[in-house]
Amino acid sequence: MSESRPVALDAMGGDHAPHEIVAGAVHAVRERGLSVVLVGSPRVLYEALADHDATNDVPIVRAEEALAMDEGALASLRRPRSSIAVACHLVRRGDACAVVSAGSTAGVVATGRLRLKPQQGVLRPAIAVALPTVPTPTVLLDAGANAEVKPEALVQFAHLGTAYAELAFGVEHPRVGLLTIGSEAEKGNKLVKRAHELLEGSPGVRFIGNVEGYDLLAGKADVIVTDGFTGNVALKTMEGAVRYAFGELRTSIGSGRLARLGALLQRSRLRELRRRLDAEAHGGAVLLGLNGTVVIAHGSSRAPAISAACQLAADLAKGGVVARIGERVNAVPRHHRRW
Amino acid sequence: MSESRPVALDAMGGDHAPHEIVAGAVHAVRERGLSVVLVGSPRVLYEALADHDATNDVPIVRAEEALAMDEGALASLRRPRSSIAVACHLVRRGDACAVVSAGSTAGVVATGRLRLKPQQGVLRPAIAVALPTVPTPTVLLDAGANAEVKPEALVQFAHLGTAYAELAFGVEHPRVGLLTIGSEAEKGNKLVKRAHELLEGSPGVRFIGNVEGYDLLAGKADVIVTDGFTGNVALKTMEGAVRYAFGELRTSIGSGRLARLGALLQRSRLRELRRRLDAEAHGGAVLLGLNGTVVIAHGSSRAPAISAACQLAADLAKGGVVARIGERVNAVPRHHRRW
Repeated sequence: MSESRPVALDAMGGDHAPHEIVAGAVHAVRERGLSVVLVGSPRVLYEALADHDATNDVPIVRAEEALAMDEGALASLRRPRSSIAVACHLVRRGDACAVVSAGSTAGVVATGRLRLKPQQGVLRPAIAVALPTVPTPTVLLDAGANAEVKPEALVQFAHLGTAYAELAFGVEHPRVGLLTIGSEAEKGNKLVKRAHELLEGSPGVRFIGNVEGYDLLAGKADVIVTDGFTGNVALKTMEGAVRYAFGELRTSIGSGRLARLGALLQRSRLRELRRRLDAEAHGGAVLLGLNGTVVIAHGSSRAPAISAACQLAADLAKGGVVARIGERVNAVPRHHRRW
Repeated sequence: MSESRPVALDAMGGDHAPHEIVAGAVHAVRERGLSVVLVGSPRVLYEALADHDATNDVPIVRAEEALAMDEGALASLRRPRSSIAVACHLVRRGDACAVVSAGSTAGVVATGRLRLKPQQGVLRPAIAVALPTVPTPTVLLDAGANAEVKPEALVQFAHLGTAYAELAFGVEHPRVGLLTIGSEAEKGNKLVKRAHELLEGSPGVRFIGNVEGYDLLAGKADVIVTDGFTGNVALKTMEGAVRYAFGELRTSIGSGRLARLGALLQRSRLRELRRRLDAEAHGGAVLLGLNGTVVIAHGSSRAPAISAACQLAADLAKGGVVARIGERVNAVPRHHRRW
């Protein structure tokens, strides 16, 4: 599928909005050849684009309101003209192919749900994150859109994640694991035990069984499904643990006779590695299952991360991720559907 | 409270049983001045003790059966004379002060529950692990004893963890956090939202509110309560993430011009640090809330970890952790109890 419509980029969301967002848009257009439209306050964005001599390169769509980073789901209902709402509206109208925002996750998810609506056949949209495994990332979902779900939703997450792994990372027949607390089928809580039964023999899902917390970064599965509460706790735990390990490492190599070697390491590979591992630097989480793709960049994103998020959004749109998910979910034979 | 009764050490549980277990017992007796009794096959244990010239230093209590490492909860019911069951029986009879086992967690938990029974007023025994924060460890519970609990159980976990942090780590007025997916009171699933209400204003609990996955290793709380499903996923995720970070680090510093510096680091501090961070090396998880303390050492424990686990068990028994938990749980005014 060719895709000439631009990515709608929420220019007002994120800790470094609008300047780093605008710089990311300029990078995406000039270096990646992407088509991007900035959504936000025209006056502010025009000035920011002028700093890059880019007023002719990136169009602006007006949105005078914005969601603050600490505003949650409710605020999104009260701000129908916020930059993220307008960006969603562009996709809805067919004037943009996907949305990118570095705004507050709760606000982006609530706005996306409200403005784009779940696609036909999808029970619950989910947040998918790509964990830095090799050779291809492991997709973890739901990373926090739904604190409470039914087992049937986990089967759908398997379809959403499978479509994402295929399109974003070119994985053929992605292996799907179910996050729980032991490898035997009967391990876990009620939700997981029932989901295990449903996933076994689910058409179109290559289910490899239970996986545990250890396996998230071990590359054992291409897609790992869980409820949004567990997924969010696991993702943040992982980020905290990586940060902790590097902090301890810095303390350890910063003291004693190895101090100078440590300092050398810190300045070079260590910093690079830390950045790569730190989940905050990943291309972005993706909200799947809506009538349009929404890439949620981390709130602390600077220009390179915004540009990468635009690339991911464009790739997913070009691959037709919404249609692919729709085909998968609706291709499940009626007697296998529990939704 | 003085404590002269020995620690009952399950000599047949663990990947390196019985030799490393016996070596750990000899270390605990000789180097730590602890009193330990080994439970297992007398012939095998006598020979192992003879290797240390220690046949007179450590008494043996006969148990001819053992739970295999891959045997779960059900097997423990079928083996009333297993080494872990006999060790629990010694505590029950008042002939030992606490149990240490490196056997399978599921088997140890099931046997402990069955043989020692939950103490009066305790709804659910829980597994507590000490995370390596500074200046004192953070106690996470439940780390996996209960896959499904009611909100009231989380309040009790707060009492169990508070007693443990006070006795094992000397923390005064431990701060208790509730693990969830956002700092606001209304964040989380139904279980957590209700537990938040119950914890607020719970007498005897210094509740500091919600904590997130990031906070597990940040020293923000002294005790973090969660259900056993979430706690187990978080603990294993943390272990996996630390392992991953060090693996990546090794790859990174092992290549290119920094290879030699990296190799130097690997041989010294890095290995030491990795061992300290790796949750597998911690003193052991503790099963709290039974009529007797059970320390569950990691299955891969060697002599030093077994010796440390014996020390922890003796310290907890000496501090009267069972009585302390009983006082806490039963001191909650009736109108505040929801159990």
